[in-house]
Amino acid sequence: MKCLKRSHCPIAFALDIFGDRWSLLVLRDLLFKGKRRYSEFMASEERISTNILSERLERLEGEGLITKSRDKTNRRQFIYAPTQKSFDLLPAILELSCWSAKYDPKTAAPPALMRRIRNDREGFIREITARFTKSTILH
Amino acid sequence: MKCLKRSHCPIAFALDIFGDRWSLLVLRDLLFKGKRRYSEFMASEERISTNILSERLERLEGEGLITKSRDKTNRRQFIYAPTQKSFDLLPAILELSCWSAKYDPKTAAPPALMRRIRNDREGFIREITARFTKSTILH
Repeated sequence: MKCLKRSHCPIAFALDIFGDRWSLLVLRDLLFKGKRRYSEFMASEERISTNILSERLERLEGEGLITKSRDKTNRRQFIYAPTQKSFDLLPAILELSCWSAKYDPKTAAPPALMRRIRNDREGFIREITARFTKSTILH
Repeated sequence: MKCLKRSHCPIAFALDIFGDRWSLLVLRDLLFKGKRRYSEFMASEERISTNILSERLERLEGEGLITKSRDKTNRRQFIYAPTQKSFDLLPAILELSCWSAKYDPKTAAPPALMRRIRNDREGFIREITARFTKSTILH
Protein backbone atom coordinates (compact mmCIF):
# COMPACT_ATOMS: atom_id res chain seq x y z
CA MET A 1 0.00 0.00 0.00
CA LYS A 2 1.64 3.22 -1.17
CA CYS A 3 0.21 6.64 -0.44
CA LEU A 4 -0.16 9.34 -3.07
CA LYS A 5 2.48 12.02 -3.02
CA ARG A 6 1.40 15.66 -3.00
CA SER A 7 4.66 16.95 -4.45
CA HIS A 8 8.28 15.91 -4.82
CA CYS A 9 9.53 18.49 -2.40
CA PRO A 10 11.73 16.32 -0.15
CA ILE A 11 10.00 17.51 3.02
CA ALA A 12 6.52 16.80 1.65
CA PHE A 13 7.71 13.39 0.39
CA ALA A 14 8.81 12.35 3.89
CA LEU A 15 5.61 13.69 5.47
CA ASP A 16 3.46 11.77 3.00
CA ILE A 17 5.09 8.58 4.26
CA PHE A 18 5.28 9.14 8.02
CA GLY A 19 3.79 12.57 8.65
CA ASP A 20 1.34 11.29 11.21
CA ARG A 21 1.43 10.80 14.95
CA TRP A 22 2.13 7.06 14.86
CA SER A 23 4.35 5.71 12.06
CA LEU A 24 7.60 6.99 13.55
CA LEU A 25 6.62 5.57 16.94
CA VAL A 26 6.30 2.12 15.38
CA LEU A 27 9.75 2.59 13.83
CA ARG A 28 11.06 3.79 17.21
CA ASP A 29 9.83 0.60 18.88
CA LEU A 30 11.40 -1.46 16.12
CA LEU A 31 14.73 0.37 15.93
CA PHE A 32 15.40 1.28 19.55
CA LYS A 33 13.28 -0.95 21.74
CA GLY A 34 13.85 -4.30 20.06
CA LYS A 35 10.12 -4.87 19.48
CA ARG A 36 9.27 -7.23 16.64
CA ARG A 37 5.72 -8.46 17.17
CA TYR A 38 2.27 -6.91 16.86
CA SER A 39 1.50 -7.48 20.55
CA GLU A 40 4.74 -5.73 21.51
CA PHE A 41 3.86 -2.64 19.46
CA MET A 42 0.40 -2.64 21.04
CA ALA A 43 1.98 -2.45 24.50
CA SER A 44 3.64 0.96 23.95
CA GLU A 45 2.89 3.64 26.51
CA GLU A 46 1.27 5.92 23.91
CA ARG A 47 -1.54 3.34 23.55
CA ILE A 48 -1.91 2.97 19.82
CA SER A 49 -5.24 1.49 18.77
CA THR A 50 -5.25 -1.85 16.98
CA ASN A 51 -6.76 -0.53 13.74
CA ILE A 52 -4.23 2.32 13.51
CA LEU A 53 -1.37 -0.08 14.24
CA SER A 54 -2.48 -2.51 11.51
CA GLU A 55 -2.86 0.28 9.01
CA ARG A 56 0.55 1.79 9.85
CA LEU A 57 2.37 -1.55 9.69
CA GLU A 58 0.81 -2.23 6.30
CA ARG A 59 1.75 1.23 5.06
CA LEU A 60 5.34 0.99 6.37
CA GLU A 61 5.68 -2.39 4.66
CA GLY A 62 4.23 -0.96 1.43
CA GLU A 63 6.77 1.85 1.54
CA GLY A 64 9.62 -0.62 2.01
CA LEU A 65 10.49 0.58 5.52
CA ILE A 66 9.81 -2.73 7.23
CA THR A 67 9.57 -6.39 6.28
CA LYS A 68 7.04 -8.89 7.61
CA SER A 69 7.68 -12.60 7.87
CA ARG A 70 6.23 -15.60 9.69
CA ASP A 71 7.69 -16.27 13.10
CA LYS A 72 9.50 -19.61 12.75
CA THR A 73 8.86 -20.44 16.40
CA ASN A 74 5.14 -19.66 16.20
CA ARG A 75 3.67 -19.83 12.70
CA ARG A 76 0.57 -17.88 13.69
CA GLN A 77 2.66 -14.80 14.47
CA PHE A 78 4.52 -12.35 12.30
CA ILE A 79 7.93 -10.84 12.88
CA TYR A 80 8.59 -7.29 11.70
CA ALA A 81 12.07 -5.99 10.92
CA PRO A 82 13.46 -2.65 9.72
CA THR A 83 15.08 -2.30 6.28
CA GLN A 84 18.00 -0.13 5.18
CA LYS A 85 15.43 2.54 4.27
CA SER A 86 14.50 2.66 7.98
CA PHE A 87 18.10 2.70 9.15
CA ASP A 88 18.63 5.68 6.84
CA LEU A 89 15.98 7.54 8.86
CA LEU A 90 18.06 7.29 12.03
CA PRO A 91 19.88 10.63 11.52
CA ALA A 92 16.53 12.47 11.19
CA ILE A 93 15.00 10.60 14.15
CA LEU A 94 18.02 11.33 16.35
CA GLU A 95 17.99 15.03 15.41
CA LEU A 96 14.28 15.19 16.27
CA SER A 97 15.06 13.56 19.61
CA CYS A 98 17.76 16.13 20.38
CA TRP A 99 15.30 18.90 19.58
CA SER A 100 12.68 17.42 21.92
CA ALA A 101 15.22 16.82 24.67
CA LYS A 102 16.09 20.53 24.47
CA TYR A 103 12.52 21.83 24.47
CA ASP A 104 10.55 19.37 26.59
CA PRO A 105 11.11 20.26 30.25
CA LYS A 106 9.81 16.83 31.22
CA THR A 107 11.76 14.90 28.59
CA ALA A 108 12.31 11.22 29.18
CA ALA A 109 15.44 11.31 27.00
CA PRO A 110 18.41 10.18 29.14
CA PRO A 111 21.01 13.00 29.28
CA ALA A 112 23.90 10.55 28.76
CA LEU A 113 22.29 9.20 25.60
CA MET A 114 21.69 12.71 24.25
CA ARG A 115 25.35 13.59 24.87
CA ARG A 116 26.38 10.43 23.06
CA ILE A 117 24.20 11.36 20.08
CA ARG A 118 25.55 14.91 19.96
CA ASN A 119 29.18 13.80 20.25
CA ASP A 120 29.14 10.63 18.16
CA ARG A 121 25.96 10.36 16.16
CA GLU A 122 27.48 8.16 13.47
CA GLY A 123 28.93 5.73 16.02
CA PHE A 124 25.57 5.43 17.73
CA ILE A 125 23.86 4.77 14.38
CA ARG A 126 26.38 2.04 13.58
CA GLU A 127 25.69 0.51 16.99
CA ILE A 128 21.92 0.46 16.45
CA THR A 129 22.28 -0.97 12.96
CA ALA A 130 24.72 -3.65 14.15
CA ARG A 131 22.10 -5.03 16.56
CA PHE A 132 20.05 -6.09 13.57
CA THR A 133 22.71 -7.26 11.19
CA LYS A 134 24.22 -9.43 13.93
CA SER A 135 20.89 -11.05 14.69
CA THR A 136 18.88 -13.14 12.29
CA ILE A 137 15.87 -10.90 11.91
CA LEU A 138 17.09 -8.77 8.99
CA HIS A 139 16.39 -10.35 5.62
CA MET B 1 -2.94 26.58 21.79
CA LYS B 2 -0.83 23.70 23.08
CA CYS B 3 -1.59 20.09 22.30
CA LEU B 4 -1.62 17.36 24.91
CA LYS B 5 1.48 15.19 24.99
CA ARG B 6 1.05 11.42 24.95
CA SER B 7 4.39 10.71 26.58
CA HIS B 8 7.74 12.38 27.14
CA CYS B 9 9.57 10.06 24.81
CA PRO B 10 11.46 12.60 22.65
CA ILE B 11 10.13 11.15 19.40
CA ALA B 12 6.52 11.22 20.60
CA PHE B 13 7.01 14.78 21.89
CA ALA B 14 8.10 16.01 18.44
CA LEU B 15 5.27 14.14 16.71
CA ASP B 16 2.69 15.63 19.06
CA ILE B 17 3.78 19.06 17.87
CA PHE B 18 4.25 18.57 14.12
CA GLY B 19 3.46 14.91 13.42
CA ASP B 20 0.96 15.77 10.74
CA ARG B 21 1.16 16.27 7.02
CA TRP B 22 1.18 20.08 7.12
CA SER B 23 2.96 21.78 10.03
CA LEU B 24 6.47 21.12 8.72
CA LEU B 25 5.43 22.37 5.27
CA VAL B 26 4.43 25.69 6.81
CA LEU B 27 7.82 25.82 8.54
CA ARG B 28 9.50 24.89 5.23
CA ASP B 29 7.81 27.84 3.50
CA LEU B 30 8.84 30.13 6.33
CA LEU B 31 12.43 28.90 6.71
CA PHE B 32 13.46 28.14 3.13
CA LYS B 33 11.09 29.98 0.81
CA GLY B 34 10.95 33.37 2.50
CA LYS B 35 7.16 33.26 2.89
CA ARG B 36 5.77 35.43 5.66
CA ARG B 37 2.09 36.01 4.94
CA TYR B 38 -1.05 33.88 5.09
CA SER B 39 -1.71 34.32 1.36
CA GLU B 40 1.83 33.18 0.58
CA PHE B 41 1.41 29.96 2.59
CA MET B 42 -1.92 29.37 0.82
CA ALA B 43 -0.14 29.48 -2.55
CA SER B 44 2.06 26.40 -1.90
CA GLU B 45 1.94 23.66 -4.48
CA GLU B 46 0.62 21.10 -1.97
CA ARG B 47 -2.62 23.14 -1.77
CA ILE B 48 -3.25 23.43 1.93
CA SER B 49 -6.85 24.28 2.80
CA THR B 50 -7.56 27.56 4.56
CA ASN B 51 -8.96 25.97 7.73
CA ILE B 52 -5.98 23.62 8.11
CA LEU B 53 -3.56 26.50 7.51
CA SER B 54 -5.23 28.68 10.18
CA GLU B 55 -5.24 25.85 12.66
CA ARG B 56 -1.57 24.96 12.02
CA LEU B 57 -0.38 28.59 12.26
CA GLU B 58 -2.21 28.96 15.55
CA ARG B 59 -0.75 25.72 16.87
CA LEU B 60 2.81 26.59 15.75
CA GLU B 61 2.45 29.97 17.44
CA GLY B 62 1.11 28.30 20.61
CA GLU B 63 4.11 25.97 20.65
CA GLY B 64 6.51 28.91 20.31
CA LEU B 65 7.75 27.89 16.87
CA ILE B 66 6.60 31.04 15.10
CA THR B 67 5.66 34.58 16.02
CA LYS B 68 2.80 36.61 14.55
CA SER B 69 2.80 40.39 14.32
CA ARG B 70 0.94 43.10 12.41
CA ASP B 71 2.44 44.04 9.08
CA LYS B 72 3.60 47.64 9.51
CA THR B 73 3.02 48.39 5.83
CA ASN B 74 -0.50 46.95 5.84
CA ARG B 75 -2.15 46.84 9.26
CA ARG B 76 -4.81 44.38 8.12
CA GLN B 77 -2.18 41.73 7.45
CA PHE B 78 -0.02 39.61 9.73
CA ILE B 79 3.62 38.72 9.33
CA TYR B 80 4.83 35.33 10.55
CA ALA B 81 8.43 34.66 11.54
CA PRO B 82 10.34 31.62 12.82
CA THR B 83 11.80 31.54 16.34
CA GLN B 84 15.00 29.90 17.59
CA LYS B 85 12.90 26.82 18.38
CA SER B 86 12.20 26.57 14.63
CA PHE B 87 15.81 27.16 13.66
CA ASP B 88 16.73 24.32 16.00
CA LEU B 89 14.56 22.03 13.87
CA LEU B 90 16.73 22.66 10.80
CA PRO B 91 19.08 19.67 11.43
CA ALA B 92 16.09 17.28 11.58
CA ILE B 93 14.42 18.87 8.54
CA LEU B 94 17.63 18.68 6.51
CA GLU B 95 18.20 15.03 7.46
CA LEU B 96 14.63 14.23 6.41
CA SER B 97 15.28 15.99 3.10
CA CYS B 98 18.42 13.94 2.48
CA TRP B 99 16.47 10.77 3.15
CA SER B 100 13.74 11.77 0.68
CA ALA B 101 16.28 12.83 -1.93
CA LYS B 102 17.76 9.33 -1.68
CA TYR B 103 14.49 7.42 -1.86
CA ASP B 104 12.23 9.52 -4.09
CA PRO B 105 13.16 8.76 -7.71
CA LYS B 106 11.32 11.93 -8.77
CA THR B 107 12.75 14.14 -6.04
CA ALA B 108 12.67 17.88 -6.63
CA ALA B 109 15.65 18.30 -4.27
CA PRO B 110 18.47 19.98 -6.26
CA PRO B 111 21.54 17.65 -6.24
CA ALA B 112 23.93 20.56 -5.60
CA LEU B 113 21.94 21.60 -2.52
CA MET B 114 21.90 18.03 -1.21
CA ARG B 115 25.69 17.82 -1.64
CA ARG B 116 26.03 21.10 0.23
CA ILE B 117 23.91 19.78 3.10
CA ARG B 118 25.86 16.52 3.29
CA ASN B 119 29.24 18.26 3.20
CA ASP B 120 28.53 21.36 5.26
CA ARG B 121 25.24 21.05 7.10
CA GLU B 122 26.22 23.47 9.87
CA GLY B 123 27.36 26.14 7.39
CA PHE B 124 24.08 25.83 5.50
CA ILE B 125 22.11 26.17 8.75
CA ARG B 126 24.06 29.31 9.65
CA GLU B 127 23.30 30.72 6.21
CA ILE B 128 19.55 30.08 6.56
CA THR B 129 19.46 31.54 10.06
CA ALA B 130 21.44 34.62 9.00
CA ARG B 131 18.77 35.51 6.43
CA PHE B 132 16.41 36.19 9.30
CA THR B 133 18.69 37.81 11.80
CA LYS B 134 19.90 40.23 9.11
CA SER B 135 16.36 41.21 8.18
CA THR B 136 13.87 42.89 10.45
CA ILE B 137 11.34 40.11 10.73
CA LEU B 138 12.78 38.27 13.72
CA HIS B 139 11.65 39.67 17.04
